[in-house]
Amino acid sequence: MLTIVGELINTSRPAVKEAVNNKDEAFIRELARKQADAGATYIDVNCGNMVKNELEIMEWLVNIVQDEVDTPLCIDSPNARALDVGLALCKNGRPMINSISDEDERYESVLPLIKKYNAKIVVLCMDSTGMPETSADRMKVVKNLHAKLKAEGIADDDMYFDPLVKPISSVTSAGEEVLDTIRQIRQDYPDVHFMCGLSNISYGLPNRSILNRLFVVQTMTLGMDGYVLDPTNGKMMADIITATALLGKDNYCSKYIKAHRKGKLDASPDA
Amino acid sequence: MLTIVGELINTSRPAVKEAVNNKDEAFIRELARKQADAGATYIDVNCGNMVKNELEIMEWLVNIVQDEVDTPLCIDSPNARALDVGLALCKNGRPMINSISDEDERYESVLPLIKKYNAKIVVLCMDSTGMPETSADRMKVVKNLHAKLKAEGIADDDMYFDPLVKPISSVTSAGEEVLDTIRQIRQDYPDVHFMCGLSNISYGLPNRSILNRLFVVQTMTLGMDGYVLDPTNGKMMADIITATALLGKDNYCSKYIKAHRKGKLDASPDA
Repeated sequence: MLTIVGELINTSRPAVKEAVNNKDEAFIRELARKQADAGATYIDVNCGNMVKNELEIMEWLVNIVQDEVDTPLCIDSPNARALDVGLALCKNGRPMINSISDEDERYESVLPLIKKYNAKIVVLCMDSTGMPETSADRMKVVKNLHAKLKAEGIADDDMYFDPLVKPISSVTSAGEEVLDTIRQIRQDYPDVHFMCGLSNISYGLPNRSILNRLFVVQTMTLGMDGYVLDPTNGKMMADIITATALLGKDNYCSKYIKAHRKGKLDASPDA
Repeated sequence: MLTIVGELINTSRPAVKEAVNNKDEAFIRELARKQADAGATYIDVNCGNMVKNELEIMEWLVNIVQDEVDTPLCIDSPNARALDVGLALCKNGRPMINSISDEDERYESVLPLIKKYNAKIVVLCMDSTGMPETSADRMKVVKNLHAKLKAEGIADDDMYFDPLVKPISSVTSAGEEVLDTIRQIRQDYPDVHFMCGLSNISYGLPNRSILNRLFVVQTMTLGMDGYVLDPTNGKMMADIITATALLGKDNYCSKYIKAHRKGKLDASPDA
């Protein structure tokens, strides 16, 4: 089954920022509840754009979310101190950290947190030379990071690689490079996982939803097994349920048939 | 770009059978025109279920279609005599034959027609031992047929392999076996093509359209480059245009953007 990190509790979304500023606990609770009910396996908590008081907001959000749902959390920040604050509060099973990379400062500051909290870790295919272009660039970083994390005792099963999605509107082959990276990671490291938001792929193009949904289907076909997304998006979830059945991962198509009976495939009805 | 064989002129469809019985030329012309306008690269002509007078119906259909459109034809029949009648009339460029297999009688009767008409050929992954189960079964047949056709002087570029799609409702892994076959054919024979109708995949399940569409997206991701389908299905074509852009085969996403401007992606609007 896929690992789905529900992305909605993120203060870069204006409604969430407003709720945080107004201390609107009910709004945050509802976002947590809706995502858990829709099938999120982790709830992301991200307030990284509220730099002035990120630490206290992280604490406030994590406590509310855990008071509402039992789903484990994904603590998401560029700031290791904010990660530490969030992780220290986690009590819904093993948390996930988003993210480490091979940039020196981030690597050094996040590595101790993985160990301290026995956390699962999202690993960005990125180092201090900047954003990678080709799949070969990405695989170089993957090889380095995998070896370093392995040497630190972190299990393959706890690593979630993010292949770093860039828009096809600026470079036509951007999707191809990601697909090729997934194929190679799956081949060279069969026991690691993936975790990534894909919506960058459609940046700058019209009708982004169809691009985002079909890129999920394409990446699943090559073995990607984790996504940061909105689990309350009915069309996205219908496509994921359908793609899972087509890939032979839904015995007797029972989840597909159940979703149909519940009307969950109606968002993508017959033509 | 994909090769798309428009499937609508097939007497197994009741409306087409009725039109044939009534000699309703206008109906057939419209089906040919609509498919050509929608982007079919070949128009399929199949009257294989009208056993009694298949030869004269084939002649009637081929002449009408070619009088209406310039698109090349795919002559489709289990009967080599009907193929011969249709192929002899083809004048819209090189025709395609659907199909040859490694069943003795079919192989012996269709091989001469490929040469006689310099036709492109759909090659079923099937021999006299019956329908294959696994991708390994299919690859055994592919290897044999590819070697035999090659020895007869038929170019890789003229071979269109059909991986034989069976329903996931009866065997959960049926889609997986097809995807694996495509991956292996693409790897071992990089210059051959594919041609297949995929709707068998969803046989016996509800809401078949979403399964059929996403299976096209999945197979495209592994390199499948030809389909027998209904090119007037707006949702299917929207998914194909979108998947093509994501795979890096639409420079600057210009076909995607053009399709959006013409309203052709509206069949799969934003959630």
